[in-house]
This record gives sequence, structure tokens and C-alpha cells, in this order.
Amino acid sequence: MAGNSIGQLFRVTTFGESHGLGLGCIVDGCPPGLGLTEGDLQIDLDRRKPGTSKYTTQRRESDQVKIFSGVFEGKTTGAPIGLLIENEDQRPKDYSSIMDRFRPGHADYTYTHKYGFRDYRGGGRSSARETAMRVAAGGVARKFLLTKGVRIRGYLSQLGPIKIETLDWDEVGNNPFFCPDSSKVPEMEVLINRLRKEGNSIGARISVVATGLMPGLGEPVFDRLDADLAHALMSINAVKGVEIGDGFGCVVQKGTEHRDELTLEGFLSNHSGGVLGGITSGQDLLAHIALKPTSSITTPGRSINDKGEAVEIVTKGRHDPCVGIRATPIAEAMMAIVVMDHFMRHRAQNAEVVCSAPMIPASAV
Amino acid sequence: MAGNSIGQLFRVTTFGESHGLGLGCIVDGCPPGLGLTEGDLQIDLDRRKPGTSKYTTQRRESDQVKIFSGVFEGKTTGAPIGLLIENEDQRPKDYSSIMDRFRPGHADYTYTHKYGFRDYRGGGRSSARETAMRVAAGGVARKFLLTKGVRIRGYLSQLGPIKIETLDWDEVGNNPFFCPDSSKVPEMEVLINRLRKEGNSIGARISVVATGLMPGLGEPVFDRLDADLAHALMSINAVKGVEIGDGFGCVVQKGTEHRDELTLEGFLSNHSGGVLGGITSGQDLLAHIALKPTSSITTPGRSINDKGEAVEIVTKGRHDPCVGIRATPIAEAMMAIVVMDHFMRHRAQNAEVVCSAPMIPASAV
Amino acid sequence: MAGNSIGQLFRVTTFGESHGLGLGCIVDGCPPGLGLTEGDLQIDLDRRKPGTSKYTTQRRESDQVKIFSGVFEGKTTGAPIGLLIENEDQRPKDYSSIMDRFRPGHADYTYTHKYGFRDYRGGGRSSARETAMRVAAGGVARKFLLTKGVRIRGYLSQLGPIKIETLDWDEVGNNPFFCPDSSKVPEMEVLINRLRKEGNSIGARISVVATGLMPGLGEPVFDRLDADLAHALMSINAVKGVEIGDGFGCVVQKGTEHRDELTLEGFLSNHSGGVLGGITSGQDLLAHIALKPTSSITTPGRSINDKGEAVEIVTKGRHDPCVGIRATPIAEAMMAIVVMDHFMRHRAQNAEVVCSAPMIPASAV
Amino acid sequence: MAGNSIGQLFRVTTFGESHGLGLGCIVDGCPPGLGLTEGDLQIDLDRRKPGTSKYTTQRRESDQVKIFSGVFEGKTTGAPIGLLIENEDQRPKDYSSIMDRFRPGHADYTYTHKYGFRDYRGGGRSSARETAMRVAAGGVARKFLLTKGVRIRGYLSQLGPIKIETLDWDEVGNNPFFCPDSSKVPEMEVLINRLRKEGNSIGARISVVATGLMPGLGEPVFDRLDADLAHALMSINAVKGVEIGDGFGCVVQKGTEHRDELTLEGFLSNHSGGVLGGITSGQDLLAHIALKPTSSITTPGRSINDKGEAVEIVTKGRHDPCVGIRATPIAEAMMAIVVMDHFMRHRAQNAEVVCSAPMIPASAV
Repeated sequence: MAGNSIGQLFRVTTFGESHGLGLGCIVDGCPPGLGLTEGDLQIDLDRRKPGTSKYTTQRRESDQVKIFSGVFEGKTTGAPIGLLIENEDQRPKDYSSIMDRFRPGHADYTYTHKYGFRDYRGGGRSSARETAMRVAAGGVARKFLLTKGVRIRGYLSQLGPIKIETLDWDEVGNNPFFCPDSSKVPEMEVLINRLRKEGNSIGARISVVATGLMPGLGEPVFDRLDADLAHALMSINAVKGVEIGDGFGCVVQKGTEHRDELTLEGFLSNHSGGVLGGITSGQDLLAHIALKPTSSITTPGRSINDKGEAVEIVTKGRHDPCVGIRATPIAEAMMAIVVMDHFMRHRAQNAEVVCSAPMIPASAV
Repeated sequence: MAGNSIGQLFRVTTFGESHGLGLGCIVDGCPPGLGLTEGDLQIDLDRRKPGTSKYTTQRRESDQVKIFSGVFEGKTTGAPIGLLIENEDQRPKDYSSIMDRFRPGHADYTYTHKYGFRDYRGGGRSSARETAMRVAAGGVARKFLLTKGVRIRGYLSQLGPIKIETLDWDEVGNNPFFCPDSSKVPEMEVLINRLRKEGNSIGARISVVATGLMPGLGEPVFDRLDADLAHALMSINAVKGVEIGDGFGCVVQKGTEHRDELTLEGFLSNHSGGVLGGITSGQDLLAHIALKPTSSITTPGRSINDKGEAVEIVTKGRHDPCVGIRATPIAEAMMAIVVMDHFMRHRAQNAEVVCSAPMIPASAV
Repeated sequence: MAGNSIGQLFRVTTFGESHGLGLGCIVDGCPPGLGLTEGDLQIDLDRRKPGTSKYTTQRRESDQVKIFSGVFEGKTTGAPIGLLIENEDQRPKDYSSIMDRFRPGHADYTYTHKYGFRDYRGGGRSSARETAMRVAAGGVARKFLLTKGVRIRGYLSQLGPIKIETLDWDEVGNNPFFCPDSSKVPEMEVLINRLRKEGNSIGARISVVATGLMPGLGEPVFDRLDADLAHALMSINAVKGVEIGDGFGCVVQKGTEHRDELTLEGFLSNHSGGVLGGITSGQDLLAHIALKPTSSITTPGRSINDKGEAVEIVTKGRHDPCVGIRATPIAEAMMAIVVMDHFMRHRAQNAEVVCSAPMIPASAV
Repeated sequence: MAGNSIGQLFRVTTFGESHGLGLGCIVDGCPPGLGLTEGDLQIDLDRRKPGTSKYTTQRRESDQVKIFSGVFEGKTTGAPIGLLIENEDQRPKDYSSIMDRFRPGHADYTYTHKYGFRDYRGGGRSSARETAMRVAAGGVARKFLLTKGVRIRGYLSQLGPIKIETLDWDEVGNNPFFCPDSSKVPEMEVLINRLRKEGNSIGARISVVATGLMPGLGEPVFDRLDADLAHALMSINAVKGVEIGDGFGCVVQKGTEHRDELTLEGFLSNHSGGVLGGITSGQDLLAHIALKPTSSITTPGRSINDKGEAVEIVTKGRHDPCVGIRATPIAEAMMAIVVMDHFMRHRAQNAEVVCSAPMIPASAV
């Protein structure tokens, strides 16, 4: 399959470039009968869209999504759902100064060698603008999963050196960083303002959680739920690391520490992040991602141009000083797509299963 | 697609259980004309196989692979390659004491809820014994990639709290841990011996590197090379985290630190791990994985049984005190399968590409 | 994968309903560097579009396609190509009289039982209007294949009882039936006019040919070229039969008749239709399809409604008296998509192949 | 995906050559809890196997299948089912006289040009011996489908010029031709004996029927049930045509004849072959295939060799004078795999569907 699709049964295929006419996607395989409006999808698109605070890019896009097909009389029909967002604030000319040179840390060099040339307008297809369609498609999955009691939420767990210390879900929507610890927000503001002045950027860590999951989702041995989740999360622009549950913390753990013991009152801990043997246990599904600092900064750097000359490069234009800031809804969307797909894959094979073994609560506490 | 296949064009599908008749796989899509013998595959199988040192499980398996099809007169024909390894040292009875209860940290509970019951013989399909076939299939990919100058190697970079300090490739094969720093081997021996006595286990970190890569491999936006690699590596038993390049180290990095500047003499650094925008840059491809401590330990733990009663559980049988020890050839195999698949996917689409832009060395040093 | 995609490497995914906002598709995997304009695609869309003669439906659609993405400065970039056609002449109200009943020979009953309800507006997704996007996507494939010397053309070989007797390619574009035998056109006109008056319809047979093919395309044993072609052609609305080469004529043939002997001057015949063992031989690829008579006729028929009552049904609205008339460009498009996909699949696996055996001409004559 | 797999959720992947060590396959995605023994699969393998009458090839193969994995305590576990048949009567030397030349009507020329060389031992992978594994895998699907009331049966409907006149299911197993009309069997015997003496062969037509189907199976617009069935049936060696329902008979039908009217007592006819809009209607699923005469005949023919010289060729060895004779169980198996796959795909998407519309009987008679 070509590379612009994700999911097997809940299948999302996207198109569109940063400074082209717009972005679109097809969500194929959605169950029929699901109530769905453009407003349902707009909620998360608005959370992701640029230009909403001074801490993100100043590009102005309303990111209004249009449902072209697949919904009739307010409900999904089972036919493919076509979605479209038109670009409004393209400025391809902003990029004329870099059209002949390769921005370090960007996909310029690699796209050129893969395809023979590149769409230099803001990265073209390699721009993070593409992620708007992930959020729209993820919105369909989220709407369906809610009908099954599954809820997916994320937050910024670390911005550069600033780690959160408390997780208050109610705070996540109260600041432009998706930060669940209000005591850290002022520090974050100071950091981002300073970086912007310095012409620099910073990395971030995002955490995502699905609650209300049923046990049984995931297809060993290769399409384990955690493996598919790692694929989906690593496919987000700028992501360089994925952890499930304790992740790299496991390296120094002993077996007695890590194993999550079972009691009739529930699991006693959740080091596994809700997945055992690649299959959900019914505990919360926990994932964390690392995002690199954006390479679009105004501090000059060394590079070469397409004629093979050494050049200095400065990336002007409108950019996020931390791409992690807007990544929370994207990570949520990717988790939603994966969980949705596996929900459907699971019931395809296992609809007859009647399990006589007891099901225990997600957590004993 | 069902979950026991990986790769799109170089397609590996496996079967087999820990204490069944044996393991097998089909490698479909391999280019014809590649010289291939059972001996080629045996090299890595022997590196992975159990019972070769006192630091791993004492199960005795010769893991002799038989090529059933797809090779004629010493060369691949383009037809699917059928591979088979018969189990020799099954002991299903070892598991009779745990057949009614769920081992914490294992897939027992999740398999039962997914499929309605489980193959309790050593985990059945969920056993890491399954990974033998990954190594065999990966061996085919490695043989082909070598003809293109691509070499894939891995090593243990951390065992519990013990981190390596030097990377000497020549040392990796000289100790049972795949440790590239001989000065750390005695500590590791002590640690593993102590854990075994305590009835405990420990986590590990493995690193894998591909050198000699061509730029251009990877299929944005979802099937980025790093995303597919994350999928493949996370699908290995016990893996809980995947990093590409600097991975979670990126969280605290600034843009000026992270971006790998380009000069005509080559890239000045490799924080990206050889992938930009999901496509190889020609630099070394670097990945790291975290493996959890095995949950098969003799320290008693709390659990429940299939009748819904609280029970105490002790996992006897033959187990690795650190599953990370034997994971290096498995991680190498998974990287080989992914790179091979993307090599084929890339040329399917881009065979006509003639790129006039300069190609620079992987590293300026 | 969900059902609205076709092709593995040249991957076409469509959406849209007959009386919704419009139709769209994503062509993913197209090689970069191919010159492509909307005009290139419009040529075949205009051949298929309704309302161009009195022998087809009178629905008026300009079927103007817009390229949304994947083309930059007149060339494909390797990124997914988003295509969109807006509906202009929807008349959902035409269907209010049949919204509660199942038209015989239509998908009404089956869609309702599959999805729980149906989009009754002209069949919604099940309408042949969907095939416009096949033609647009096929146009991309055709443009690429022409650069390799492969040309795909079709014609009407039989309309009801009227069989063509000569094949003059130059005549195909001179009449509204895609009939290559001008001597049969008057009869066809009479037949269609008579059927329309009678409130009836008729079946047809379409033939498609690809010339200039390279040997080697096709992936045994399941994804044989002829098998994938059968899939693609049978997926066209109203198609009930597919033949490759002599097709059902083979049933009464003897081995001495059927086998196409080889000489240094070329093959002596082409009973096989250009495929041996599922792989192209370099001969012309020949396929034939049977299309059923449309069931949208004004002669009353028996049916039931959604309340379980017996009803009489008459299908008014705007319909083709023979869906086969406009099917030629659709069949060409499907063959183009299949050949394109296999061209790419073939070189993915076999790019290293150097064959020392002689290649002979497609035909000795 | 490489070409040796079929099905999306019920996924069958095969390997093996005619004169290699054996044949194998992996059935991935089978629902757990299905009772399954080797004997279940042997029934149809014995119907297909060679050497059982004087009207087929005299190669002696017991075709004993071994279940390697995926079944535990007599039931499928949900893990991949590995199947193996070892070859017993290989005679690669039979083929030494043709190893340098291309048999007309065979895949020799096309395999050579695709892969650079060929496995000349009886066609290697292109041999119809490969179909044994289709029958084994299809047996798993058949066993499952029976638990849902779906039964799949086939018969020889025409042997060369001899058409059956009555369909008596009880007769099918009483003669070596799978002929349901006992009055035609003597003619068939005479025909085959004469052809064998003449060194010639003949084509055939096979029909397959599934009864007891639920409405709703099939995934428009590309993966219609009939399209996937056409793919599966056309992928069988020697098949050159596929019809659903009336097939090519539709070309001369009028709309009033073809449409199957609905009454509360059931459908009044079944011209559609049980599929409307690509989705099952609950009527019998009817398909017909045309098989070409085998090209392995002893009448000399013209060809070339791999040095580019004209040669005469005679195919000795052990061959079927009519490959259609043994094709009935193969066609049944392919239909079973397709129906099974779509049964699973359907419930993945539509498990929530509650349809208030009436379901009518398959047939009013």
C-alpha cells in the first residue's frame, strides 16, 4: 500500500500540502448509524489549529472542515467519508529564499533525493499542516469510541526541562500548552518567550491516555496494539520516541517491580500501560512521545544548496517555537484511530467468543 | 490483514507455538537470484538460540532451519520461501500448575479475554520462542541488503543499571550479552547471577544501527521509515519503548543543538538517527529499544485464577532472567525486514528518479 | 482494508454519492515527475460523462475535475493526488417515491440489510456515478503507461443481440456507442430507441485491449495479472462476467487449438489474451466483460417495501437504457489501474533481473 | 502485499513447488474455538488429489496434511494455522528434456522474463500442484461457514462439448468428473479416452454454489463480493473466464427479464447469482468458470529455446487431459475463502446494525 493510509478496517487516507489548495482525507470503513456532524470534528480541529495564541505560529487558518460524503440525514452510512479543509493563508513566496537550499533538520534533503525534486513551499507534503486531517479523521473514531465508553485524552507532560508535577485534567484546556499542572504554566510562558527572542526552539513530551477500554484489542504477533500505536505515534511529524507504560523506565526495573499483580479488586499497578502480549488488559492505555525541537529557527545554520555549494541558512516565515505545544490533539487522534481500528479487527475475528474467565477492574484503587 | 504478517512487499508471515510441533514462516516477495542457503540463516539463529550460556534459559533447541521452497539451485526464485524449525525440547507439562491462573505481566489474562481461552503451554503463541522465525526471515533480508552495501548490527547498551561506556563492535560477539564494552561484562555476570538467586529479573536497552544506507527510503506520511521501524521493534516481546536517534533526549534539546547541519564533507552530527521527514538521509539509521524485565520469576506474586479466586503464583520452568540478553539478533532482524521492505517500496515508485542535487557523505568525520 | 480502495502500490481510494456534494478520490503512490494537468484527466471524463447523446441518461454534469494536491509546477511530486468533482445536477427529490421500497435488480435491498438503512437518493454510493472517479484515477495511470509505450483502448463488442463484425479503432470515437463497426451503428440506434419506448433496457459486452506491454507483469499465485484484472473489471457496476483472451470459448477448445505457439518471429496466436501463468507475455492483453441490462426501467415490477408489504415499482428519473454504452472508458480505466499497479509491483521485486533468454514479438503477423 | 496471499481478515498465504520438498500454507485470522482436525481438511484434499482415476494424472501423492500450529486440544486458538503437505512422488528428471525450452501455453516464457530464470521442474511454483493448499485452507473456511449454515458445493457443468442437462447433487461424488448428470458420464469417459490417445486435451466449465448465505456480505465499491470472487476464481490455474449468475448471458437479456423481482414469499428468480451492488442478497451465490485445455500434451508443437533457436516440443510426463476434472474442489475452496473473509469483514464494520426492514426467503419456490 502506498504510504498515505493508516488503519486496516478503519482506514484513513490523507492528501494535501501546506501551501497548496487544501487538505483532504477519506475515512473508509466507519460503522454506519453513527451520528456525525462537521461540528463534532471541528472541536478538536480548533484545539489544534494555528494562530490561537502567541506561543504558536501566526499563520491564520480557520481549518473549517467540510463533510463531502458518507453521512446522510446526520448519520454515517457505511460509505467512505470524504473530508476537506481549504487552505486560506498560503504564502508560498515566503519560501523563495530557501527554494534552492536544504534546511538542516528538515525533510528538504531527503524528499529531494527520494522524489528528484521537492515542493519547497513550506515543506509541501512534509509540513505538519498535514496533521489537521489526522485530527479530523481521529474525530470520527473518537465519536464512535465514546459510544463504547472509551475516552482518549492527552496532555503536555514536559516542555524542555520543565516537567509537570500534578495531573489535573481540568487544567489541560485552560492554557495554550495543554499543560495539566497550572503551577508550571508561567515558567513555560517565560521559556517560550525567551526562545523566540533567541531565535531558538525546544523539544517536548506528550502523554496520551485511553480509559474505558475493553480487554482483547490487539493482533499478535506483529500487529500488537502497542506496535500499531508506536507506528501511528512515530508517524507524527517531529516525534523521535514512543513509550508504552513505563517505557524506558523498564530498563532499570526488576521483575518484581514491573509486573502488575492481579486481584479480584483489580490490577494493583499499571507499569505495562494497559497492554500485555500486545493485547489490551482493560487497564488505561498509556503512551508517551518525545518531540524534537523544530528546526525552523532564525539562528543561522550551515547547509548546502542544490548546486553543491556551502550556504548559510536562516528559516524565516511563521513557525512554532515548540511543535509539541499543538501536538496533544494530534496524538489523541492517532491513538483514537488505532484503538478504533483494533476494535473492529477484534470483533471481526472474535465475535463468537464467550469468555467464562472473570474480568477484573482496571485498577484496584 | 491478520496480525501475523509484517512488511508490504518483503512480506513475512509466521506461525508456531512454544510447545507445539514447531515454528514456520513464509517470506514472500524476495527478489530472485539471491544466493541463499540454510547456513546463511543459521548464523543468526545460532546467535539467538536458547541454552548457549548459563545466563539464558536452559531449554535446548538446535533451531535448525529448513528451507522448504523458493530456492532452486542455490538461488531464490522469486517464489515464496517457506521456512520451518521443529521444536525439540517441548515440555508442556511444566505448565500444568499454571494452566488455571493468570501470570502477572504475561499475556495469559489478555489472550483469555480475546480468544475465550488460551494455550497455556509456555504462553503458546505469546512466547518469545516465536521470535526465532523473525530472525530466520530477517536473515534473508540481511543477505540481500548486504549486496547493496547495507549492514545491520546491534548491541546491548544497558543492562539494568549498567550502561556501556565504549562501543567496540569487535567485542559484541565475545560475550553472551552482546555487550560492546568488555569492561562491563563482569558486572553483568554478577548482576544476572544475583538476580537468578533472588528469583528476580531485570530490564535492558538494546541499540541497533544500519550503515551504508541510501537516502530516500520511507513512505510519508504514515509509513515513514521510522514509524514502520517503531512498529516492527515494538512488536518484539517485552519491548516497551522505541527511540530513533536521540529519542527522548530531544525533549530537553534546543533547535540549535538538534538540527544536523549539512556540509559538503557530510552531516556534522546525527541527532536525527538517519531519518528526516520519515525518509533516510544516508546517515546511519539508529534505533534504541527498552525491554521490560521478564515476569517469569520465582518470587511469588498475587493473581487470580479462571474461577475468580485469589491465588499466589510462582513461575517455574526455564526462563531468561533478562529477555534483553537474547534480543539483539531479533532487533537486528526486525530492522532488516523494515529496511528491505522500504528498499523495494521506494524503487517501485521512484525508479525513474534522476536527482541532480548533490549527495553528501553520511558523516563529516 | 476497507472496500473503497484498489491497487497496492498505485492505490486509488474513492468517495462520493450520486446525489451528494460530489465525488473525490486519492491516487496514492504515483511516481514523481509525471507531467499532469486537469486537462489530461478531462479527456476520458468527457468520454464517460452523461448527457452527451440521446442514448444515455439526460442528467447534466460537466464532471470538471480539480487536482487538489500532488502536482507542483505541472508535475507529480510523489505525494498523494487529491481529485474532486462537484455534483451539479443532483435531484434527490426524484427518488422520494421509491425511498420506502426496494427496486428489483438494484442494491437497495442489500445495502439496507448490510448497513441498516440506505441512502435512497439515486442509489447513493451504489450509483454508477461513482465510476467517474475511476476514470479520473485511471487517467493518471494511462498518462504514465504511455511513457512506457503501453496503450489501453476499449470498444463495444456487442449490444444486446447486435455483434460487431469488424474492429476499426478509428470508428470507436465516431458514435455514441464506442462501436468500432460503423455498419452496426444504425441498428444500435434503432434498438435503443425502441427499448426506451418500451420502458426496457438491454445488456452489452465491452472489450478492452492493452498493447505495448512488457512481459513479466503479474504476481502469482493469487495476484496474477488476470486475477487482479478480473477483480477490477467485476467491480464495475452491472458487470456479471469477465473473460481473458478466449474466455468461455476455451471450454470447447482442444489443447492443440488453444496453446499459442512461439516462433522467433513472434507468437502465432493469442488465445491466452496475453497472460500465461498469471504473468504478461508481451502479447496484447485482452479482456471482455458482460454488463447486465439496467434495472431502472419504467415497466412496472413486483417488489416489497420496508414495512414488509407487496408493492409495485416503476423506476422513473434519468437513466441509461444500456449501462454498457458508457462503460468503455470505465473498463479502460480499470485495466490501466491494474497494469500500472503491477508495473510498479514487478519492478519492486525484480529490478535486478537481467534475462538472457530471447524476447519475441507479440505477434508473428 | 506480495502475491501469495489471499483474503484480508481470513488470510491465506501459500508456498511450495511441484517437485520441491512440499507445500505449505498459513491460515491467519481464523476465529478461535472452531473444532478442527486434519481429517476435516483431508476430505476435500482427497477429492482433489491426483492419481485417483485413470482420467487424471498418474502422479501418486497421498497429500496428507499436517496441522503444525493454531489448534490446541482440538480447537482453533485464534493463532495462525500452519499446514504442511510433503511431496512424495517428485520426478524432477522428467523435465530435463524441456529445461531449455518454453512450453507453449505454459508459464515458462513468462516466469523466465519476470524472474530471470525458472524452476523447470514441472513448472515449479506455476504448477497446479499448488492448488492443494488452497483446498486445505478452504477446508478451514468451509468448516467455519457450516456453523453459520453456509454450504458450498460445485460440479462440472460442461466438459468440452458435453453439457450437463440435469443437476443431481447426489451424483457429483459418484464419478471421477464431479458430473451431476449421470447420463453424461459415459460420453465423458469416451471423450477423455480418445483425447488421451490423440495426445490432446480439452477445456471445461465448473459451477459453484453457496447456499444458506446471509444478506450483507461484500464491500463496495471495489471489494464487492463478486469482484473478490472473480479475483479468487481467476487466480486458479487455467481459468480464463468467470461469471456471476447469468454472466455473459446478460448481454442479450432485457431489463424485464434480468431483474429478480421480490415478493414476500421470496425472490422470483436468481439471474443476479445472489449478489446485488456487490453485496449478497441471501439468494444462492452462483459462479461459473471456464478452464482452458491443458497445454501439456504429446502432440508436438512449435517453440523456441533459451538460446533463441526454433525447436519442436512435446510435453511428456504425467498430466491431466482436462485440468477441469479436478478443479471442482479447488473452486469450492476459493469461494469458501472469499465468503469467509467477507463474513468477517462485514461484522467488523456492521456489528451494531439492527435492520428493521423485512428479510425475504432466498427463493419463492
